[in-house]
Amino acid sequence: MQPYNVGILGATGLVGQRLIERLTDHPWFRITALAASDRSAGRPYAEAATWRLSASPPRQVAAMVVRRCAVDELGECDLVLSALDAQIAREVEPQFAQAGLAVISNSSAFRQHEEVPLLVPEVNASHLELIEAPRRRNGGGFIVTNPNCSTTGLALALAPLHLAFGIEKLVVATLQAISGAGIDGLRAFDLVDNVVPYIPTEEEKIEQEMGKILGTLEGERIHRAELAVSAHCHRVPTLDGHLEAVSVGLRRRVEPVEVVAVLEQFRGEVTDENLPSAIERPIVVRAEPDRPQPRLDRDCGNGMSVVVGRVRRCPVLDVRLALLSHNTVRGAAGGTLLNAELLAARDLLPRRNPA
Amino acid sequence: MQPYNVGILGATGLVGQRLIERLTDHPWFRITALAASDRSAGRPYAEAATWRLSASPPRQVAAMVVRRCAVDELGECDLVLSALDAQIAREVEPQFAQAGLAVISNSSAFRQHEEVPLLVPEVNASHLELIEAPRRRNGGGFIVTNPNCSTTGLALALAPLHLAFGIEKLVVATLQAISGAGIDGLRAFDLVDNVVPYIPTEEEKIEQEMGKILGTLEGERIHRAELAVSAHCHRVPTLDGHLEAVSVGLRRRVEPVEVVAVLEQFRGEVTDENLPSAIERPIVVRAEPDRPQPRLDRDCGNGMSVVVGRVRRCPVLDVRLALLSHNTVRGAAGGTLLNAELLAARDLLPRRNPA
Amino acid sequence: MQPYNVGILGATGLVGQRLIERLTDHPWFRITALAASDRSAGRPYAEAATWRLSASPPRQVAAMVVRRCAVDELGECDLVLSALDAQIAREVEPQFAQAGLAVISNSSAFRQHEEVPLLVPEVNASHLELIEAPRRRNGGGFIVTNPNCSTTGLALALAPLHLAFGIEKLVVATLQAISGAGIDGLRAFDLVDNVVPYIPTEEEKIEQEMGKILGTLEGERIHRAELAVSAHCHRVPTLDGHLEAVSVGLRRRVEPVEVVAVLEQFRGEVTDENLPSAIERPIVVRAEPDRPQPRLDRDCGNGMSVVVGRVRRCPVLDVRLALLSHNTVRGAAGGTLLNAELLAARDLLPRRNPA
Amino acid sequence: MQPYNVGILGATGLVGQRLIERLTDHPWFRITALAASDRSAGRPYAEAATWRLSASPPRQVAAMVVRRCAVDELGECDLVLSALDAQIAREVEPQFAQAGLAVISNSSAFRQHEEVPLLVPEVNASHLELIEAPRRRNGGGFIVTNPNCSTTGLALALAPLHLAFGIEKLVVATLQAISGAGIDGLRAFDLVDNVVPYIPTEEEKIEQEMGKILGTLEGERIHRAELAVSAHCHRVPTLDGHLEAVSVGLRRRVEPVEVVAVLEQFRGEVTDENLPSAIERPIVVRAEPDRPQPRLDRDCGNGMSVVVGRVRRCPVLDVRLALLSHNTVRGAAGGTLLNAELLAARDLLPRRNPA
Repeated sequence: MQPYNVGILGATGLVGQRLIERLTDHPWFRITALAASDRSAGRPYAEAATWRLSASPPRQVAAMVVRRCAVDELGECDLVLSALDAQIAREVEPQFAQAGLAVISNSSAFRQHEEVPLLVPEVNASHLELIEAPRRRNGGGFIVTNPNCSTTGLALALAPLHLAFGIEKLVVATLQAISGAGIDGLRAFDLVDNVVPYIPTEEEKIEQEMGKILGTLEGERIHRAELAVSAHCHRVPTLDGHLEAVSVGLRRRVEPVEVVAVLEQFRGEVTDENLPSAIERPIVVRAEPDRPQPRLDRDCGNGMSVVVGRVRRCPVLDVRLALLSHNTVRGAAGGTLLNAELLAARDLLPRRNPA
Repeated sequence: MQPYNVGILGATGLVGQRLIERLTDHPWFRITALAASDRSAGRPYAEAATWRLSASPPRQVAAMVVRRCAVDELGECDLVLSALDAQIAREVEPQFAQAGLAVISNSSAFRQHEEVPLLVPEVNASHLELIEAPRRRNGGGFIVTNPNCSTTGLALALAPLHLAFGIEKLVVATLQAISGAGIDGLRAFDLVDNVVPYIPTEEEKIEQEMGKILGTLEGERIHRAELAVSAHCHRVPTLDGHLEAVSVGLRRRVEPVEVVAVLEQFRGEVTDENLPSAIERPIVVRAEPDRPQPRLDRDCGNGMSVVVGRVRRCPVLDVRLALLSHNTVRGAAGGTLLNAELLAARDLLPRRNPA
Repeated sequence: MQPYNVGILGATGLVGQRLIERLTDHPWFRITALAASDRSAGRPYAEAATWRLSASPPRQVAAMVVRRCAVDELGECDLVLSALDAQIAREVEPQFAQAGLAVISNSSAFRQHEEVPLLVPEVNASHLELIEAPRRRNGGGFIVTNPNCSTTGLALALAPLHLAFGIEKLVVATLQAISGAGIDGLRAFDLVDNVVPYIPTEEEKIEQEMGKILGTLEGERIHRAELAVSAHCHRVPTLDGHLEAVSVGLRRRVEPVEVVAVLEQFRGEVTDENLPSAIERPIVVRAEPDRPQPRLDRDCGNGMSVVVGRVRRCPVLDVRLALLSHNTVRGAAGGTLLNAELLAARDLLPRRNPA
Repeated sequence: MQPYNVGILGATGLVGQRLIERLTDHPWFRITALAASDRSAGRPYAEAATWRLSASPPRQVAAMVVRRCAVDELGECDLVLSALDAQIAREVEPQFAQAGLAVISNSSAFRQHEEVPLLVPEVNASHLELIEAPRRRNGGGFIVTNPNCSTTGLALALAPLHLAFGIEKLVVATLQAISGAGIDGLRAFDLVDNVVPYIPTEEEKIEQEMGKILGTLEGERIHRAELAVSAHCHRVPTLDGHLEAVSVGLRRRVEPVEVVAVLEQFRGEVTDENLPSAIERPIVVRAEPDRPQPRLDRDCGNGMSVVVGRVRRCPVLDVRLALLSHNTVRGAAGGTLLNAELLAARDLLPRRNPA
């Protein structure tokens, strides 16, 4: 396949870095442009970014000059992967879509927009139907989003239970990693001998996104799943990997062993499309009493699996469990890239500069 | 008042150290004996213990020779404060009680025994009625216990809500400090860039203790409160202070502002007894969105207050909130000592060697 | 004594907070004004500052309105304690001195100025002679400084060795706490599972300050001590307490036991002046092989002692040892305050608004 | 090449785990036997070991039954890689050597033995001459060791400076990772908000090993390099990667730029032997002021490079720098394996069970 030309918006942040890491040597995509804030624009990437995933940025991008996040600066791209902050994304992403580019975004700006799928490919690939109208309107351009980092793992792990048993309500407490707030997001002074029981707007995101992700397509609209969600979010001093403790209320009484069976059998909606970032088992269940743990389990499935453990009866709702997913991979860059791959496999990406 | 002679069982561990810290210069109690395992017995305390609360143990105890945990070695004591492991406590504590000593214990061994109060003085001082039978039988000796470190703060914060509104069920997720497992309890290698979603027997303790603590005295028995409890316990790399995220289902619909009012008005059952370790406000409510935090709030009220924050509506149950209490103070040594003070104030402690 | 009116410059930062903590209920000083950046000015202190030393700022200052750092805003003060950044201090501190106020500063701006003492009272109180000229010129106003946080403990521990044996050279490696960089100084992402072998300008400060502190007064000038200093500075994830590993070359061969004796006998130059913050033993020597440790030993002597351990022969220079001092107390606010107390005791502070 | 049959002694510990990780899919070696303490013997490896390098042990070894560390249990092995504690190694390793096996050991037990090379292949491969006598005596069996984890990086980084300029003395302060003490080696309670200025026997090891490693072969003996070494060792809360701050005294005055040039040109003694674990650049020099850092740089060169930074003039000795090496890879398992590869390449390994 002729590779698509990809631009990365917000390339210097942690999610931007993960996108670069995962796009290096990608079979379908080629990094064509790196864009970031005006402060970074004009400088070589290795200098503009505080690279934090390894000793140094990949050789292929180190010398690339960072551009501004503007349509006229990324003219040769077919699609952009966006790791922009919501506020900037709200302004910039529609410009790219209207110019005919595919915008595959990790930002929260348009997750609840009715023409924008909130996509977890294994769970709701059918929601791609939503982009048909904007594609027609924009000469091929559109926006697709992935959920918030703490929602993704939750949605992926609970989707098969929703299908099998029907989820009516859930209470979730999260223990979220530092990387979720970006390199500059948290002060060292606040996370030594401490944890923080608050992450701005995080609980709202989880509570609002679950219904859309698990919703069903009716005509060209998503009918939201009707489930009550209560989230308690915490920041803890781990680098990567969001751990979540979940109690779930189901439509009928279910044994933990049935839950484990459903989770272990789950393969998802995209198993036949050979997406490069897809894994055989999106959900991995561990039997040990003290797993999953962030440092040990976050890289499971190359960071794309959600790892579930401690499946047991809940004395208040029906079932409870612990789950972990890598927040900047599965919950951000990896999820964004998987969305882009799904679009490529289904031939929904524009070719703006055919060879 | 002529001070009571106090022995400390399990004096070398972290809870034992907190007991010593809090008994130094106590107006009613005098440390008469320190007892610990056979490995420590016979050695000066400063040498036998790995003191970790400050630079060095208090001068008054440093040179005291540690004794074995046996009745005949602590003959001159009126009461013992026990920080023993459950397994040893199960064997040793009844021997002291039967010999006529008061046993004020932090151990889990007898918390569910029908003649043993599971005491949080502000909440259920009336449960002391349970010790009348053993006192008569044992010539003044008996056992009183305080709840598990993660139960105490929960019970204290929820007791006024139970009184005011009736609690039917609750889901709690804990983020518990390292000190809860003792000095040797956790490996450094497991808590750098990591948290652990499991603490052996902890969830069971929380789930079983709440009903007894909030129960009512009927004749000489406790009638357990009927509430469903679901606990998810985590270990996090903080030194002290257990943080808990709680969703509560009440008998009637209640506004968060009513909950805050009830919490702020709470003073508890023992306000008139002038207990040295009692504080004016056992529950402190903070209005900031990101509090309580372990490092900042654990020492509130000299470590004896439970600090509550983030009181808000719960989309699944009725109300949710965050709470924090100092696990080795309020949740262990401080709670044990407050129990002893209550018994002294009510003249329920034996005087085995009157002046 | 009629208390002096004290203003605090830079009152919202961590050192400013420590100054407030230590001035609350001080017998000689009264907090009259709190000043900070324009961003904070005009707001109540409790709101302007991110208080991090305990649950909440002391009641006495919580409602005080923060002022700008300008002479005309602090007219009623006799002296100011300055916790300003060097750049701002360079501009502002001389204005206060020229207006007749005493400026007792923690800033690095004027530490090497020839009319400014670089003061550790126990070590070089005689250097106060330097302020005579500016006092005459400024109607009582002058600037006095304390050393950098990582220099103070080093100078205090080595001063008696310099007196007794003559220090020719020293190599020091520091493991410095997060608080030394201020609340916002370091990113959490950079200090989980990591340490950083660099602190901007820190090594230069240590290397330059030692010679002045240990220098001798000749006429109205300081004759710098001639010793070569090599510093390797590291940031580590501790909250407070700078640990330093030192190898020292002396003018003559000395046994470790002699070093210990000299350190233990040291009382310093100000023992007879009853300074409220002074302690009986500015240097505490520990015999255990694994001490001092930051968390255990930083509060020794109310945070004002330097704790020394591991005194042993050095195979390259002569003697080596480990030392620890509390960086925001002894190395900053506590040191600043001790300087102010020394000046008060010697009646060198102006009384600008006598009763 | 017919792969050699390898046994791992001490296979369940962290170094044993690294050996397994690095031997999986090795081109020259095949894991034939895993041996550990009697407590582990007889159990499947996945059950006996607390695997901590990733989610689970490699499939190839998970089901292998652990054996006792006895010659008659590892009869089919040609060589053993030993990660045993010194005390056990002292007893067991000679039995294997005398039985004709090659013992490639990470243990300290025989590092100073005159017939045992203390090997860093890039630095002193010529020391292999020492094994000729034992090989003859033992029918091919012998012992080879690698240095202590904190010595290896130091020796590797300083060897080219010693060759080029002659090192007379050095002062080194280490900031060592938790993994160096093994999984159970350190208590979490001691490394939150803390560092420890002491590691038992570590300073002695560094001080004694440098002279042998940098020594020269004279006849069949090592003539130790004459250099004075002073080490200050600290434990810090990092997982992997020992950081060291070094001041070096040389035989002649040298500019930092010359030092950098010598370090960057260094390739070592084994460049032509195509050892699978060898890397092109054993020493990597970074120009940034704040590198190397453990988390960012420890995996450089697949964990086999020593990373050097901050090369600058030393005011006391001549030159100073910071260096980092991965303690359980380059400083342990990776170093052990590289030694085994060197022996294989030079055909010095026995073939005890030829095909």
